[in-house]
Amino acid sequence: MAYEHILYDVSDKIATITLNRPDRMNAWTPTMERDVRHAMEVSSADENVRVIILTGAGRAFCAGADMDALKGLDPNDVGRASNLPPFDMNRRPDWQTRYGFYPSIGKPVIAMLNGATAGIGLVHALYCDLRFAADNTVFTTAFARRGLIAEHGMSWMLPHIVGHANAMDLLLSARRVSSEEALRIGLVNRLCPPEKLREETYAYAHDLADMVSPSAVAVIKRQLYEVPFQTLAEATIEANREMMVALNGSDFREGVASFMEKRPPRFTGK
Amino acid sequence: MAYEHILYDVSDKIATITLNRPDRMNAWTPTMERDVRHAMEVSSADENVRVIILTGAGRAFCAGADMDALKGLDPNDVGRASNLPPFDMNRRPDWQTRYGFYPSIGKPVIAMLNGATAGIGLVHALYCDLRFAADNTVFTTAFARRGLIAEHGMSWMLPHIVGHANAMDLLLSARRVSSEEALRIGLVNRLCPPEKLREETYAYAHDLADMVSPSAVAVIKRQLYEVPFQTLAEATIEANREMMVALNGSDFREGVASFMEKRPPRFTGK
Amino acid sequence: MAYEHILYDVSDKIATITLNRPDRMNAWTPTMERDVRHAMEVSSADENVRVIILTGAGRAFCAGADMDALKGLDPNDVGRASNLPPFDMNRRPDWQTRYGFYPSIGKPVIAMLNGATAGIGLVHALYCDLRFAADNTVFTTAFARRGLIAEHGMSWMLPHIVGHANAMDLLLSARRVSSEEALRIGLVNRLCPPEKLREETYAYAHDLADMVSPSAVAVIKRQLYEVPFQTLAEATIEANREMMVALNGSDFREGVASFMEKRPPRFTGK
Repeated sequence: MAYEHILYDVSDKIATITLNRPDRMNAWTPTMERDVRHAMEVSSADENVRVIILTGAGRAFCAGADMDALKGLDPNDVGRASNLPPFDMNRRPDWQTRYGFYPSIGKPVIAMLNGATAGIGLVHALYCDLRFAADNTVFTTAFARRGLIAEHGMSWMLPHIVGHANAMDLLLSARRVSSEEALRIGLVNRLCPPEKLREETYAYAHDLADMVSPSAVAVIKRQLYEVPFQTLAEATIEANREMMVALNGSDFREGVASFMEKRPPRFTGK
Repeated sequence: MAYEHILYDVSDKIATITLNRPDRMNAWTPTMERDVRHAMEVSSADENVRVIILTGAGRAFCAGADMDALKGLDPNDVGRASNLPPFDMNRRPDWQTRYGFYPSIGKPVIAMLNGATAGIGLVHALYCDLRFAADNTVFTTAFARRGLIAEHGMSWMLPHIVGHANAMDLLLSARRVSSEEALRIGLVNRLCPPEKLREETYAYAHDLADMVSPSAVAVIKRQLYEVPFQTLAEATIEANREMMVALNGSDFREGVASFMEKRPPRFTGK
Repeated sequence: MAYEHILYDVSDKIATITLNRPDRMNAWTPTMERDVRHAMEVSSADENVRVIILTGAGRAFCAGADMDALKGLDPNDVGRASNLPPFDMNRRPDWQTRYGFYPSIGKPVIAMLNGATAGIGLVHALYCDLRFAADNTVFTTAFARRGLIAEHGMSWMLPHIVGHANAMDLLLSARRVSSEEALRIGLVNRLCPPEKLREETYAYAHDLADMVSPSAVAVIKRQLYEVPFQTLAEATIEANREMMVALNGSDFREGVASFMEKRPPRFTGK
């Protein structure tokens, strides 16, 4: 598939998806949505990929919806998402919503926030597993200042990440939030000077790609996205089941062996 | 209605409710409860009000229950709240508990914590949407030191705001918490020097009153208070429905137009 | 019962359970598990104990599972826990999982983290109510680096304490986390210089033992561990019921009297 509004690259087990409309601050379009979803599915299926990074070209991550696309939006289209795969009855419906595919990817997805992250751009950042940001980045939910509401499940994702009261502040006011405040309230996991963002994010990603078990990571990610729907007993029963599988796997043998031999592991995800 | 234990004022689209027993550190009484509830309902219904501020007169916000009222309390009265409106079968029962009316108000409610915030005073602060505090304010749950438990749903509200472990610390020990710690754990959204508290709180409130859509704010507040009871799919379906309404509203048209024309919006809430 | 892998001490209403394999960095063994559970039950039943502290001998709290025990583990044993009491149909199943007994203890349990806290060591720290740590302590979930998953309900406990995104970071990467970061994300409640850890933890514990009502503390702890399974209305109804009991109790009378008389309380837990 030829991408129009993103760049896609794989190297050293890391797939990088770059929103690529730098002259429009990577304003979100239906084409970009189609491209991102496709690239996420490709990297999810690619055995050579262990970590996925989502970032933006130029000085913004994504400044929000493309205004032309927004003004032309048919309200009846809101609940539809083009190119959605058919309903998978073996997968939680919560992870089959329009952007619910992120949590379904069995690999870590890191948002590398190189600049302004607003509106629908922030929605996508929140659906990623982790957020690393340049320390001059500005964040805003934007919606309430355009007469719009908490879209696409942001009302649900945001308080799970920053808590109820910070979500209230960010969504009611739609004010600009500095990166320092974003770190304090947990909106981002890590801040870096802009010139170090790429280096630090890829160092973290390489550590994931090389030092942790891909089979364990796939299970852990699923565990954490199940927790909001589980009791402790349910989570514990699931953990015990997964533990029995893990203890019989080669990644566990390699994990223990490499630890005892004080050498890096060679995990295969088996 | 003539208020006895509060002051009520509306100006510039902001209603201010001031607990007004300064010589008793605004100790909470049944009369104050009746007054606050009434003033909240009045400001909720007043089309000229877009933001509500709850604060205290003098040097305390509210130092807790009035000891005379507490000592004279009939245990059988605990589950009763005088002046409660009849049950509304179209509204979530969770927001019809004794103090559950706060989340039902479709306007932002900001607690402006000018001083000591303890016991029942902290309960009311937690039911507000946001908390701005003077940086010399001291907080305490107080209950366990009086032989009392986590009252009026504080056991539920507090961990949704500060997380499980901080709620445990604050409620088990009932110790005094400084404003710096309150900010670090998320108990308050913002700290200001005492002499700047009013200015900064009203600046934030004016920004809400002037720059964000009142119809969007009403929906967003409801969305965020629904989230603890929803799956992501439910939250997303609700967001899609509300989005279709918003896209057909005049606030959306005004929000986009004012953004494109780089001028302040004139939202009507329609 | 003679303990093999822990020390047990009670003085001044505080029970201290010390993991005691200092030459192995208190690596967790089935014997240690049996000892800790037994000591927790003893201190829970002991009327002279009001607070329980769990700590480690030597320079680590608990560096994880004993590698010999781990390598010899029969995968079929994972779901079994030796010495589990029979199912109590009057107690929430969530607090009858393998390590779910911690929340069932009606007294505050403080983890005093004197050094490295890793893997199963971190699991136990998370099941405690509060975590105080030396400021040179290092934390790691460890599991993914050994090919293992989020064990024993850690997937559930961790996000309730540090939020979804921090839990993702700690569990996916299994990286080492400094004590400063642990405080920032809420993984620990308090940091102290190593030479002050004991003094500050016991000062907090003595304050709990002397100044707060043991009957109120037992109720509050239960309330907070019920909240993840409750609506606000359910939490409020339960609080009202407990409040009626508390108002009739001697701890309430003593709490008010000592406050009015400006003297320390003499709570009996009645």
